[in-house]
Amino acid sequence: MREFFDAWEGFEAGKWTDEIDVRDFIQRNYTAYEGDGAFLAPATEATKKLWNIILGYTKKERERGGVYDADTSIVSRVNSHKAGYFDKSLEKIVGLQTDEPFKRALQPFGGIRMAEEALEMYGYQIDSRVDDIFTHYRKTHNEGVYDVYTPEMRNARRAHILTGLPDTYGRGRIVGDYRRVALYGVDYLIRKKEEDKARLLGDMLPDRIRDREELAEQIKALRALKEMGAEYGFDLSRPAATAQEAIQWLYFGYLAAVKDQNGAAMSIGRNSTFLDIYLERDLRTGRITETEAQELMDHFVMKLRVIKFMRIREYNELFSGDPTWVTESIGGMGVDGRPLVTKNSFRILHTLVNLGPAPEPNLTVLWSPRLPAGFKRFCAEISITTSAIQYENDDLMRPEMGDDYCIACCVSSMRVGKDMQFFGARANLAKCLLYAINGGKDELVKDRATGKPLQVSPEFMPIFGDGPLVYDDVIAKFDQMMTWLAGLYVNTLNVIHYMHDKYCYEALEMALHDSQVRRFFATGVAGLSCAVDSLSAIRYAKVYPLRNEDGIATDFRIEGDYPKYGNNDDRVDEIAVWLVKTFMNKIRSHTTYRESVPTMSILTITSNVVYGKNTGNTPDGRRKGDPFAPGANPMHGRDTHGALASLESVAKIPYEFSRDGISNTFSVTPQSLGKDD
Amino acid sequence: MREFFDAWEGFEAGKWTDEIDVRDFIQRNYTAYEGDGAFLAPATEATKKLWNIILGYTKKERERGGVYDADTSIVSRVNSHKAGYFDKSLEKIVGLQTDEPFKRALQPFGGIRMAEEALEMYGYQIDSRVDDIFTHYRKTHNEGVYDVYTPEMRNARRAHILTGLPDTYGRGRIVGDYRRVALYGVDYLIRKKEEDKARLLGDMLPDRIRDREELAEQIKALRALKEMGAEYGFDLSRPAATAQEAIQWLYFGYLAAVKDQNGAAMSIGRNSTFLDIYLERDLRTGRITETEAQELMDHFVMKLRVIKFMRIREYNELFSGDPTWVTESIGGMGVDGRPLVTKNSFRILHTLVNLGPAPEPNLTVLWSPRLPAGFKRFCAEISITTSAIQYENDDLMRPEMGDDYCIACCVSSMRVGKDMQFFGARANLAKCLLYAINGGKDELVKDRATGKPLQVSPEFMPIFGDGPLVYDDVIAKFDQMMTWLAGLYVNTLNVIHYMHDKYCYEALEMALHDSQVRRFFATGVAGLSCAVDSLSAIRYAKVYPLRNEDGIATDFRIEGDYPKYGNNDDRVDEIAVWLVKTFMNKIRSHTTYRESVPTMSILTITSNVVYGKNTGNTPDGRRKGDPFAPGANPMHGRDTHGALASLESVAKIPYEFSRDGISNTFSVTPQSLGKDD
Repeated sequence: MREFFDAWEGFEAGKWTDEIDVRDFIQRNYTAYEGDGAFLAPATEATKKLWNIILGYTKKERERGGVYDADTSIVSRVNSHKAGYFDKSLEKIVGLQTDEPFKRALQPFGGIRMAEEALEMYGYQIDSRVDDIFTHYRKTHNEGVYDVYTPEMRNARRAHILTGLPDTYGRGRIVGDYRRVALYGVDYLIRKKEEDKARLLGDMLPDRIRDREELAEQIKALRALKEMGAEYGFDLSRPAATAQEAIQWLYFGYLAAVKDQNGAAMSIGRNSTFLDIYLERDLRTGRITETEAQELMDHFVMKLRVIKFMRIREYNELFSGDPTWVTESIGGMGVDGRPLVTKNSFRILHTLVNLGPAPEPNLTVLWSPRLPAGFKRFCAEISITTSAIQYENDDLMRPEMGDDYCIACCVSSMRVGKDMQFFGARANLAKCLLYAINGGKDELVKDRATGKPLQVSPEFMPIFGDGPLVYDDVIAKFDQMMTWLAGLYVNTLNVIHYMHDKYCYEALEMALHDSQVRRFFATGVAGLSCAVDSLSAIRYAKVYPLRNEDGIATDFRIEGDYPKYGNNDDRVDEIAVWLVKTFMNKIRSHTTYRESVPTMSILTITSNVVYGKNTGNTPDGRRKGDPFAPGANPMHGRDTHGALASLESVAKIPYEFSRDGISNTFSVTPQSLGKDD
Repeated sequence: MREFFDAWEGFEAGKWTDEIDVRDFIQRNYTAYEGDGAFLAPATEATKKLWNIILGYTKKERERGGVYDADTSIVSRVNSHKAGYFDKSLEKIVGLQTDEPFKRALQPFGGIRMAEEALEMYGYQIDSRVDDIFTHYRKTHNEGVYDVYTPEMRNARRAHILTGLPDTYGRGRIVGDYRRVALYGVDYLIRKKEEDKARLLGDMLPDRIRDREELAEQIKALRALKEMGAEYGFDLSRPAATAQEAIQWLYFGYLAAVKDQNGAAMSIGRNSTFLDIYLERDLRTGRITETEAQELMDHFVMKLRVIKFMRIREYNELFSGDPTWVTESIGGMGVDGRPLVTKNSFRILHTLVNLGPAPEPNLTVLWSPRLPAGFKRFCAEISITTSAIQYENDDLMRPEMGDDYCIACCVSSMRVGKDMQFFGARANLAKCLLYAINGGKDELVKDRATGKPLQVSPEFMPIFGDGPLVYDDVIAKFDQMMTWLAGLYVNTLNVIHYMHDKYCYEALEMALHDSQVRRFFATGVAGLSCAVDSLSAIRYAKVYPLRNEDGIATDFRIEGDYPKYGNNDDRVDEIAVWLVKTFMNKIRSHTTYRESVPTMSILTITSNVVYGKNTGNTPDGRRKGDPFAPGANPMHGRDTHGALASLESVAKIPYEFSRDGISNTFSVTPQSLGKDD
């Protein structure tokens, strides 16, 4: 059944008019832009005034210790709050997370204790009614997880060999296709979900029952989204008819998601080129000027900059701050060879000029050498002046993910509205190596009952004696320990995701996905280069364990030198490749929740600090508590053969075994680039 | 690890002292009684006073329209209420469902609308806070079910081909082993559950996660049970040390169950012989007299008589009243040949004399011809004077269920603490036969959109024409329709039980079961004899369909006579056997929730009235709206060959295909028994 909406006037019809297919809409209607940034307009007076108001709130927020205000009584849901504004007369794009600017929302579905703790950190007290509800009537994700955790899981968590697990915070990393709200309007989306639900018949086995219930919850969430729009005076039931409406509708979709979920990374998708189609149409018909187009994008980005969550200290420590990861993916190449760069790709980056640099939204350019020269140059200029652009390798991801994927959080790619991810934090491979040496006894954490080193894994055979470690022996024991760790890791994540679905289901975000989604079961590793260098030291130098009074190898004496990861030296780089492949294959050998596709990432961008803090001395010479290198980076200072050799080492890590992403934090100084032309 | 508790002084040790094994405790310690009722004591003054107080409340309850008082604000949980008493100085066994006598509890976990409706029926208004919690935060069983129901399920429900489904009320039919509370004390039960949970390791697939979470919930429920005991001044953490404590502990276990669940049948198990062991010990040591022993049982039974729930009109109509089915199973034979009759089997029946007759608790004698003559005679006497004893065939059930089973509700047998049941209401076989004739169009219910007869099944080929119905054709179409109905029925129940577990889990009752229970998936049929006689009429007489303006056969003209079920005539009785076997086999062909064992019952004792009310004219000559026969009974008045022939027909129904029970409502008049001796 082909739909016709007045709002689609001027758009080329296609598959997207029959079925939800935003990519098809984009492909048929977008106007690639090969020029430069000369057309861009500066901030309007309204934009400047509004931004100043926001800066005022930001200042006050800092003065108040990091939180301006916090809701202590209204539990955040899609339609929980009255409309809120900074200054209604100035705002072209409206909508706040609560009824007041900078007032943080109360989101206890992940865990009531965490919500309370977060409030108390900033001097607030939760309303006793909410405490009562979530203590006595509404079980939370966190309570569910802890009901099921085994002692082994608790120990692994306590010892930080599994760490950063989303069991005390929302898993996030799910990106709704917010464009659907604008393109189709909510009534159409509800109807399509109802049709999907009507097709889910047959034997009512638990999976089928769950799927039908989830669709029912998605439909309720979409109805709530319409109510939220109505509260602001908009009728989201129909498609957006103008560029301003398209941005507004899309933003409301996203706002509903962040009202519903306090996820670790609440990324927004890949929207700028989609929105360009609406902006182009309005520019063509004279409905708006370029200045007004930029103003809409500036106001949209301002709204994304002020997305805030109440979070606990532990969370902020883990992430070395309070990131929201409102990642917007920009540019990239189409699979047909056309660049997906539009004028609006420029506009959204230009917000960094009009509003000044900011870490959020996390503007991420999907980079290809084949991007138009004008855009590449523009990106370089903005990077130089603002240092606020993230780049990702589009050529690497496109063959796997097509040309309508986006980045969730920092590196996780997924097809918008078609893939979701069960976020799984990280396993600490450096600590795993120490466990191989010490038979699974933790080098730092004590058993609370005995005061002796905590036995975390089963009591495997440790390496005895003071002689130098024998590489083959260490590898055999490390392999065995990784087998154990991978199993425990998958099982722990299975518990977490079962409970997140049960007690903190992302109904609104999933309503903006296809009903049959591909699910990724994301795992991750930390301490890669530390483990690799340790193994290299054991192989190529002589490493003597130094034992404490409990016989635990808590330090190592290294005789001789050894090749270090980060110097394009295959002797050690091959260990890195082996380690990544081996651990990923062990992950793959387990049954993952909801038939999700297991993936792995090597992407600790900030949390490497806290992982390192909880890991003892390692055989590579790293001292207890020192940070790991971030992501797949070589250990700091050991990549002594220049930038290229360092990058070559990292580039050897096989993407197929680390499909959730590999990060390399790389600072380019003029010297790194060699001599001046 | 063998436990030693002072409370067990004087008991013979055995397997039960190592592991939870109440049957072993009973077998080693009970004293069979072969005498008569001459030892029984009359009601004490305290008993009479207390019973008069209760009668006073009953009177006021009736004056107030059926409900004396109702809680509108405190959601009933195991430990939700302060202690309540009729008269603390008189009560030997204490504990009320709420803090006041006859004040009905508020139990919205099954469904908030039902809870509200039930209150409103009697002029009460639910507290807005509770309404808010269960509307916005805590999803209920009922909401979950309706989120998932397919249109076909809704239609089948509306047309009453599936009827009485536990989707608007608690499924009940789960009997905790309340004796465990007395014998072991709650701390031991918690420890055993913790041990069971610790053993549930291995791959964390959804079933395993669910099982671990359920055990966590069971442990929380047991802790709440201790809190409830403490509120009344008792320390349930330890085993009961006296008979009074044993009855009190056991009753607290049951009270916790009815505070937690408003189930359709909240039966109490098989307790009188168990309690006799404690009473015998106290009598032996002179701690109590027979008068005091009877007083304890009288007070216990009084408490069971006043168990009450808030229920909706629809429920009361379905069950032709407001039964609680506090079924207590009494007597029976042991598998070793010893009768399980004790003095306390007499005492509990003697409550019908001391307090007068009452329908609750539903005192059910497990009958065997080999029961001691004194007990059989005593039962007969009490039956004659009170008409308040139910009898069940112990010889039929014992081979399958052993000698520590009980009856849940009216006929469902299950091993105490080892089996549970997913209650499944009934499929209407008489209506199913009409659907076979009419291609699945309902003979009474209209499609709301078209005003035409509602198409409930897929549009199967109906029987056309006005000629007499051809038996083989009807059977083929009936078989096809039953195939559809059995599938729909199992799927509908799968949805219900999934949601009941998810939103209204019986944590306390299941805590008083073994952790690895056998689950029965109970189905049932209604209208058996009506369907059987209809088929007999079609086969042996001539049945002409009479059609309405829509072509639906809404009436039938019968030429000639036909053999009728209930006269020991194999020509028709074989149809009954075929029908029961055929439908049960179709049920068995489907996957049932949680690998439960499918069973079937033929036991509509009262609800046959409402099933008949919703079924049109049938080919046996029964008129639209007339009641079906109850259970497996012949149609009223058609069993014309005497009592024995009627019973012989019913006795042909194969128990192996109707293991959840076959009921036959049979009034014995002197004439039925033949000539006087």
